[in-house]
Amino acid sequence: MNLAIQPVSEEYALAYPSMAALTACYLQVRRHTLALAEPLSDEDCGAQSMTDASPVKWHLAHTTWFFETFILERYEPDFAPFHSAFRVLFNSYYNGIGEKHPRAQRGLLTRPSMAQVRAYRANVDQRMQLLLARSGTGEAAAQAELATLVTLGVQHEQQHQELLLTDVKHLLAQSALLPAYLELALARAGAAPAAHWLRFDGGLTEIGFQGQGFCFDNELPRHRQYVAPFELSSQLVTNGEYLAFIAAGGYRQAALWLAEGWDWVRQQQLSAPLYWRREGPQTYEFTLYGEQLLDPARPVSHLSLYEADAYARWAGARLPTEAEWELAAALQPVPSAQAGLPHTGGLHPAGASAGAGAGASGDQPQLLQMFGHCWQWTSSSYAAYPGFQTAEGALGEYNGKFMLNQYVLRGSSCATPAGHARLSYRNFFPAGARWQFTGVRLARQQACHAR
Amino acid sequence: MNLAIQPVSEEYALAYPSMAALTACYLQVRRHTLALAEPLSDEDCGAQSMTDASPVKWHLAHTTWFFETFILERYEPDFAPFHSAFRVLFNSYYNGIGEKHPRAQRGLLTRPSMAQVRAYRANVDQRMQLLLARSGTGEAAAQAELATLVTLGVQHEQQHQELLLTDVKHLLAQSALLPAYLELALARAGAAPAAHWLRFDGGLTEIGFQGQGFCFDNELPRHRQYVAPFELSSQLVTNGEYLAFIAAGGYRQAALWLAEGWDWVRQQQLSAPLYWRREGPQTYEFTLYGEQLLDPARPVSHLSLYEADAYARWAGARLPTEAEWELAAALQPVPSAQAGLPHTGGLHPAGASAGAGAGASGDQPQLLQMFGHCWQWTSSSYAAYPGFQTAEGALGEYNGKFMLNQYVLRGSSCATPAGHARLSYRNFFPAGARWQFTGVRLARQQACHAR
Amino acid sequence: MNLAIQPVSEEYALAYPSMAALTACYLQVRRHTLALAEPLSDEDCGAQSMTDASPVKWHLAHTTWFFETFILERYEPDFAPFHSAFRVLFNSYYNGIGEKHPRAQRGLLTRPSMAQVRAYRANVDQRMQLLLARSGTGEAAAQAELATLVTLGVQHEQQHQELLLTDVKHLLAQSALLPAYLELALARAGAAPAAHWLRFDGGLTEIGFQGQGFCFDNELPRHRQYVAPFELSSQLVTNGEYLAFIAAGGYRQAALWLAEGWDWVRQQQLSAPLYWRREGPQTYEFTLYGEQLLDPARPVSHLSLYEADAYARWAGARLPTEAEWELAAALQPVPSAQAGLPHTGGLHPAGASAGAGAGASGDQPQLLQMFGHCWQWTSSSYAAYPGFQTAEGALGEYNGKFMLNQYVLRGSSCATPAGHARLSYRNFFPAGARWQFTGVRLARQQACHAR
Amino acid sequence: MNLAIQPVSEEYALAYPSMAALTACYLQVRRHTLALAEPLSDEDCGAQSMTDASPVKWHLAHTTWFFETFILERYEPDFAPFHSAFRVLFNSYYNGIGEKHPRAQRGLLTRPSMAQVRAYRANVDQRMQLLLARSGTGEAAAQAELATLVTLGVQHEQQHQELLLTDVKHLLAQSALLPAYLELALARAGAAPAAHWLRFDGGLTEIGFQGQGFCFDNELPRHRQYVAPFELSSQLVTNGEYLAFIAAGGYRQAALWLAEGWDWVRQQQLSAPLYWRREGPQTYEFTLYGEQLLDPARPVSHLSLYEADAYARWAGARLPTEAEWELAAALQPVPSAQAGLPHTGGLHPAGASAGAGAGASGDQPQLLQMFGHCWQWTSSSYAAYPGFQTAEGALGEYNGKFMLNQYVLRGSSCATPAGHARLSYRNFFPAGARWQFTGVRLARQQACHAR
Repeated sequence: MNLAIQPVSEEYALAYPSMAALTACYLQVRRHTLALAEPLSDEDCGAQSMTDASPVKWHLAHTTWFFETFILERYEPDFAPFHSAFRVLFNSYYNGIGEKHPRAQRGLLTRPSMAQVRAYRANVDQRMQLLLARSGTGEAAAQAELATLVTLGVQHEQQHQELLLTDVKHLLAQSALLPAYLELALARAGAAPAAHWLRFDGGLTEIGFQGQGFCFDNELPRHRQYVAPFELSSQLVTNGEYLAFIAAGGYRQAALWLAEGWDWVRQQQLSAPLYWRREGPQTYEFTLYGEQLLDPARPVSHLSLYEADAYARWAGARLPTEAEWELAAALQPVPSAQAGLPHTGGLHPAGASAGAGAGASGDQPQLLQMFGHCWQWTSSSYAAYPGFQTAEGALGEYNGKFMLNQYVLRGSSCATPAGHARLSYRNFFPAGARWQFTGVRLARQQACHAR
Repeated sequence: MNLAIQPVSEEYALAYPSMAALTACYLQVRRHTLALAEPLSDEDCGAQSMTDASPVKWHLAHTTWFFETFILERYEPDFAPFHSAFRVLFNSYYNGIGEKHPRAQRGLLTRPSMAQVRAYRANVDQRMQLLLARSGTGEAAAQAELATLVTLGVQHEQQHQELLLTDVKHLLAQSALLPAYLELALARAGAAPAAHWLRFDGGLTEIGFQGQGFCFDNELPRHRQYVAPFELSSQLVTNGEYLAFIAAGGYRQAALWLAEGWDWVRQQQLSAPLYWRREGPQTYEFTLYGEQLLDPARPVSHLSLYEADAYARWAGARLPTEAEWELAAALQPVPSAQAGLPHTGGLHPAGASAGAGAGASGDQPQLLQMFGHCWQWTSSSYAAYPGFQTAEGALGEYNGKFMLNQYVLRGSSCATPAGHARLSYRNFFPAGARWQFTGVRLARQQACHAR
Repeated sequence: MNLAIQPVSEEYALAYPSMAALTACYLQVRRHTLALAEPLSDEDCGAQSMTDASPVKWHLAHTTWFFETFILERYEPDFAPFHSAFRVLFNSYYNGIGEKHPRAQRGLLTRPSMAQVRAYRANVDQRMQLLLARSGTGEAAAQAELATLVTLGVQHEQQHQELLLTDVKHLLAQSALLPAYLELALARAGAAPAAHWLRFDGGLTEIGFQGQGFCFDNELPRHRQYVAPFELSSQLVTNGEYLAFIAAGGYRQAALWLAEGWDWVRQQQLSAPLYWRREGPQTYEFTLYGEQLLDPARPVSHLSLYEADAYARWAGARLPTEAEWELAAALQPVPSAQAGLPHTGGLHPAGASAGAGAGASGDQPQLLQMFGHCWQWTSSSYAAYPGFQTAEGALGEYNGKFMLNQYVLRGSSCATPAGHARLSYRNFFPAGARWQFTGVRLARQQACHAR
Repeated sequence: MNLAIQPVSEEYALAYPSMAALTACYLQVRRHTLALAEPLSDEDCGAQSMTDASPVKWHLAHTTWFFETFILERYEPDFAPFHSAFRVLFNSYYNGIGEKHPRAQRGLLTRPSMAQVRAYRANVDQRMQLLLARSGTGEAAAQAELATLVTLGVQHEQQHQELLLTDVKHLLAQSALLPAYLELALARAGAAPAAHWLRFDGGLTEIGFQGQGFCFDNELPRHRQYVAPFELSSQLVTNGEYLAFIAAGGYRQAALWLAEGWDWVRQQQLSAPLYWRREGPQTYEFTLYGEQLLDPARPVSHLSLYEADAYARWAGARLPTEAEWELAAALQPVPSAQAGLPHTGGLHPAGASAGAGAGASGDQPQLLQMFGHCWQWTSSSYAAYPGFQTAEGALGEYNGKFMLNQYVLRGSSCATPAGHARLSYRNFFPAGARWQFTGVRLARQQACHAR
């Protein structure tokens, strides 16, 4: 089957598109979510492999619940819920909405069935279309308010599209049968180009979202930040480089690790990234295309922040801050960065040569693999920007309440839907999370040391 | 649909029935397991609600694995496994067989699918029929050996039929939708007859299996045991009686509880049996027929040993020993006890009047509800009978290695398949287990105290 | 210093001794407890090495609390507690008395100080003497009641004398300095005599306490029990024999272990008894006399029931039941068994030759090491004897509420105070407990297999 | 006794003081540590109330170990350790040094005794004096290197002086006797002055240590940071204000809390700061002077970051960043801030009037209670300053490896030794830590909202 993801239309990127364009965008994203579930059986869609992950069925229902709870309940004249119990069953973390089904028990929701969840989606889609059609004739302010909520719902669903893929990858990896999400033999990437250090001046700059389109509240307000001169690597750390770190005893030297990371390594007795398997001299990697021989030229992925940080220390470098990352991305000719890259290599990170894009020709080194391959750990704790404001009501819980003990990741991954990434996008996870497509781009303060 | 369970044919009860009879019995039991899964969707069959319980799909596959591993692998001339990974995936606890899929992760086995597991069952059934047909012409000793193994496999599958029902009950109970396994409004039982104390002389007696048919190794050898005179209640403790215990503060008085039980009550903050729900003045009970108003005349079920013991102490009585239970059951005119009762009240324990059976008429009080309603906790630790021998090889792990920190339950429950129960049958669970149909029959040493 | 323990005077063994004799006995036992603390600093006396163990200071105070709470509070005309907070601080597990200081935090009781606890002891001893002196002129029934309580308090304190030693051994073993409780180089035991199987007929017998002296409630009532013919080993399993079990891979073969034991071994990654330490070819054992070279002729000690059971299975034998043990001990010429053996080898189990006692001469094999070396695990779950009655009030919590998921040990150990052991004595611990002096005496059903 | 803490001499604050001055400083700090232990018994000094806290004895030994391991071992010509086992026993977290005694078991170190630890201290002090005397005649560079290490050791010991007090407070609070570290009835603070918002312009500024004296590596390098205009409260949040937060349901409203904080509150069922106890209408607070009636005018202390953050949100404000705190402190006339305040109110935070200091007169509002009362939570994650460098070898583990999932606290507390605080000092703890003297100073972005 064809899972090639179409980029969301240009009009959508406008702040308040026409209701017709918004409706088209809504339907496109909603259909894509269903398409992602197509390679899976109903059984696959019900299981939950760990508390952090959710069943595919739950993603399908929760994204629908979001539209029903935050939009239809407010705008439908004679609102009646599709099913009264769904308000609790598919509430993720909104205390302002009320009770929640326990997160660790989402895999026990064999009822409602996938068929019922599909019916739920169809029902809400129908009502949303009706609502949007009616609203097209309303006042501008009311239209804008509705458009903002719908756009948030669409972006929210795109976030769950990525989680759906990473969660199902984690689930399939638990099986001794190592089943593929999609059957495909991954081609070997060509040899990776040599990595370069690219220098950036920094200074008193600004970061945070600017422009007309949508952004999440945590990307605002745009604000000044002083950044000292720094260097970034032109590309992501590769599997081959990471193998060298392992071979050099990286997982056995306390001095390379943060204290909490060292405890984590020893308690879990780790010696490789998630999804790697050693068998004799070979290393295999479990992918959404099933288990594949590890490709040294592709970027290393599924690293915790602990591992990313230890690798950087071993390499005589460090992780970038999120400001450094955003500044560099803004200054460099990153192809279509703001609009988001359609991922070119499918559902697995591609080698640097493959990700170079149209503008990568010429001698001038540039930043490769900023988007569409691996999220890139930064050393920045996830925190509110100065002057950050949360929304009123339950939607205020969307981002703000998670700003503690998590770290920011920048860029986007092969699992990020097209059109979803942004220069100012702030993804965030706890330091030990490994089931996302998370990799490393190195930074350093000065150019005086050879890498 | 009709889930009325047909008793296994008489011939089956013979030690070594004819191969034809054994084949018929095999097929009957195998079909019944599939019938139990019929009311459930594939999604229902994959989920695991707790480590102690297993998914229905796993039960379907593991019982098949048992025949494939312990019989086909030994007797088939050119044995080839249906799927090489199944040896690990569906091994429950046999270290002698090798690796096992982790017990707590049985709910993550979305592959193989239910369709594949059904195919696995059909394949093994076909090969078993072939094997049994061929063996019918073999030597008597070889036939007897094979018949013994097949009979064990059949009995093993019947044990899993009961677990399948109690496990699925636990799963469905986790859902806010409280779905029924079968849709039915349970009729109210008539008023329970008054309970009587029945006196038994005890003395130097014998317990343990005797006779021609099948029994598990833990029922052997039959051996002498001295039992002091005792009394048993004529029937099980009812929901109504247990409500009185709760109303009297039973869950709040440390003096009624074993030390470990009191810790258990406080840590889990318990105040009622599993599956009970208070709403205003009403108490509801979740059953395989969905949630029902609690019926005071039916036996209380889903009690831990802690609760059973505390109730007995509150009632001025105690739990019986397994020897007392077996002696009483053997001496009293229990209707068809040895052959096993077809359960008359469906998949929920019935009131004492309903369970009286054909021979219960007349003035003479007798033991009611010994079989077919609730397993009855005894005070006997699960231990080897004097002279107990385990089988050679992996099958020796069937019972013996669990003889520690578990307690014996006697009788059978509404979920026990017809023909499976026996006077000498020893069921066993840890003291805190509540998801089986487990109830209380009181005992006491002397008749001098009113109950 | 001299810690040789004087046996409690003969008169004490009578059911209700004279008040003068009882007072002498009381004082003797109380002084001995203090003597046991003498080799220790106040710092040593305050620490708690695990939840199961208690600080020495806590033992000193709790045993005093027992007399104050259960005797002085009832009998003193103008009872006023020594310190109002002690009722809570030094309550072990009596819910009937009220609140308790959390068990796991006994090591945090730096206040009261050891000096205050010593003053507490002196104060209660003075008041007890006064009370006993006054009571000597009272009515016989009242005297008997008081004597019973005082005797229970004395026996209770003796139990804590043993725990004090095993708890302090566990504490000292945590230190990298491996300090000795008493400085002494243990002499090598001579070669152990060959073990013999001794045959016992069993039959319809009686077990449980009989006679005039004191016993705990759990030894009553004496009752009939049918015991099949059996054999017991003439002596305890030695360190040398246990080394052979280890060398044969005993800790690595699942088939030797109960299921729960196998989980326990793997989770804790065990490969030897508690307190053993391998260094090159040598094995050392931490003792109350500091670390010593392991003596192959001494009995193996500090085994869990899991290990005892696995060893027995490996040796082609089994553990005895408590009835077998008691019958054998009663029938054999065990020297002074009922009165209790003064321990001859100090605070470590001695080899079989040393423990033979006066009556061991001649060719006739006899039961050696029944008392005074290691408690002997039985396969008997700790349960109420038929007709068991608990005392009224909080003292009813003494034994009865622990009759679940624990196993009976018989005999006594080198740490048991003289005069405390009895034929019918029932010690009990959970299957995983290893910090007591717990060893193995093998049993078997039939003599047909060579051991 | 008199625990008034003498400020470290002025000379000490110089970068490389004379060896004589350094020796005097060394001895003064070493003596002070012993003085802090004086009110405690040896028993008090051995106990460990939780893994995060250490016994007083361990603090006494570990600070000594620091000098022995990092200085004497390097500089003594014929170095021989005081006791070979101490290298392991008193290593806190330096993997570069080797093995460590398990942190959770520091309370089990009844050996070495307090007497031995005192002897250890005396021995090392003597050797250090000898070394410093000898070094006074050496080369300047060598002297400077040694002086740097000794100064670090002295500062390290001062950090442990504070921990010693907070750890012993936690220990004493576990006792039902609620013993005082020092006996004293705390006087009621007068009514707190009204809090004011003080405005700061921010801009492109610098933070981090500058000057001649000592600082920790984590205060370096001084670097530019852009800070938007902000306001700080003139004083710490008081107990009275926090009582209003509780009365308003602060602990029961999810919307006030970070997600992780809300989980924490519910799991631990919290409703007040650590050490508070409600009894009828009264609230008591456990202090180093025993339990005292809560004083509404004193600053609230022993808050987690979760609580500090929730309070700020409830008050319509937020926590300051560490840059804001440092800028404000640098710009305001804070009395003797850089030199450190001798704490004026003893070992408990004092009210704002008491803490105003000499320069607080006049109408002009100023920042009160910046030092010497409570550490002040900031919203800044503990991270490396741009260009941060760790030392070579094991000392490089001092600070850097903890820069993850901890938050910065600024200022100092009543338990901080005199002369230890600095404008640029960065204390850090995980968000849930409550046993330090941790309070709240509010900040806000704009002055447009009344507080």
